[in-house]
Amino acid sequence: MHLVKLGGSVITDKAKVTTLRPTALRRLAGEIAASDREVVVVHGAGSFGHIKARKHRLQDGYLDDAQLPAVSEVQRDVRALNLAVVDALRRAGMRPVSLPPSAIARLDDGALRSLDLDVFRRYRDLGFTPVTFGDVVLDARRWFAICSGDLLMLALAEALHPDSAIFVADVDGVYPADPKHVRSAKMLPTVGPADLAAIDTTVRTDDVTGGLAGKLGRMFEVAKHTERCLLVNGLKKGRLLAALRDQRVVGTRVTG
Amino acid sequence: MHLVKLGGSVITDKAKVTTLRPTALRRLAGEIAASDREVVVVHGAGSFGHIKARKHRLQDGYLDDAQLPAVSEVQRDVRALNLAVVDALRRAGMRPVSLPPSAIARLDDGALRSLDLDVFRRYRDLGFTPVTFGDVVLDARRWFAICSGDLLMLALAEALHPDSAIFVADVDGVYPADPKHVRSAKMLPTVGPADLAAIDTTVRTDDVTGGLAGKLGRMFEVAKHTERCLLVNGLKKGRLLAALRDQRVVGTRVTG
Repeated sequence: MHLVKLGGSVITDKAKVTTLRPTALRRLAGEIAASDREVVVVHGAGSFGHIKARKHRLQDGYLDDAQLPAVSEVQRDVRALNLAVVDALRRAGMRPVSLPPSAIARLDDGALRSLDLDVFRRYRDLGFTPVTFGDVVLDARRWFAICSGDLLMLALAEALHPDSAIFVADVDGVYPADPKHVRSAKMLPTVGPADLAAIDTTVRTDDVTGGLAGKLGRMFEVAKHTERCLLVNGLKKGRLLAALRDQRVVGTRVTG
Repeated sequence: MHLVKLGGSVITDKAKVTTLRPTALRRLAGEIAASDREVVVVHGAGSFGHIKARKHRLQDGYLDDAQLPAVSEVQRDVRALNLAVVDALRRAGMRPVSLPPSAIARLDDGALRSLDLDVFRRYRDLGFTPVTFGDVVLDARRWFAICSGDLLMLALAEALHPDSAIFVADVDGVYPADPKHVRSAKMLPTVGPADLAAIDTTVRTDDVTGGLAGKLGRMFEVAKHTERCLLVNGLKKGRLLAALRDQRVVGTRVTG
């Protein structure tokens, strides 16, 4: 089984609220189907989640009642995105089954306290493709919190020990510095916890779930539970497919 | 707390696959919001579920692999309907939270074996309006089965002991015979198990979840767990609102 995280920045237009990148989504769904691998899909929220979540500070949990309509609204928006992902996978010939974290996960102070893993296993056993996603969920201490796609990747990797865990991003791989600003920056073929000190993690991201350092930290954790943890560019045709087929591919290998 | 079942035949066009009745849905969402009552909403699948479910015999559980894409497709379609219901409630000023049975319920040979009730209670405690719906769910014996909105009404009534349970249908109430064919048939002001023998339950319905006799049987069960169980016509303006406010309203009172 392979765990695939479709980054929100790959399948949505980062800057425009609740706007898809339909071409990228359709192609990636096609690559997953063409790989003929058993897959569990996690997708980020992208512009369907982060923009409104940041505006209403949902990542901080309950602050005041004015946030409550935004919780409902962001849950609604990420479901609309999830419906588009499910549709893309169905059109590619797969049998996706949507499992929303707001219904099956509970956090405690931002950490995952429980996730119904049995429901993932059962749908997989029947030949379905479980699809879950970054969502606003119940939190024992904060009332609600954001359960990111990366947090789900870690929980699923721990429980399901996938053959590979593939992070599909909008960059070719991990760089020691932002290649948009530092021309000399060369992509790292592998990255592990020991490399963290040499990586500039101050790059500004639109993510409400922890920035690059947080993302790398969770990827290192995921890498402990699989033989092969990779970050590949989902905006380049064929890279996800090659990664799923265990072929040589441009990307960064992540070690735990 | 009030339990409201929006019948699939009220919010969708029965005959046209995956077609909404947007005006009825918008008005009913407005009536729920205007009532200012704490509500848990259950909605049927209507033409987003029954047509394809019947075509692929999903109500019979697993027969062959050709059904599996249909399971995924019907789950997808009822989610699209659910998104429309959630949107209507949000536009009416509520804070709906969607809880899909395929993620939180398990059946065993068509009977509800488990449903995560805690998640309903927690969202309610935070001031959200839980919304669940007829769906295709995992079944221990049949692999998958249909979890109808009525089955959910019963489980929620048992667990939450609502002040009222209101079934919103496309008829004024329960009749001893189909009023479309038997002109003399007069609506029953109340109906209970003892009246069943005098009711013609052979009326043809498009429902894959048990026809009129099954529906009445489940309503009698629901009535055991609430002071007030009613069936009202959701196509007539103001009836759901009056029912929620405990005002006099045209409809049939159901007793257990």
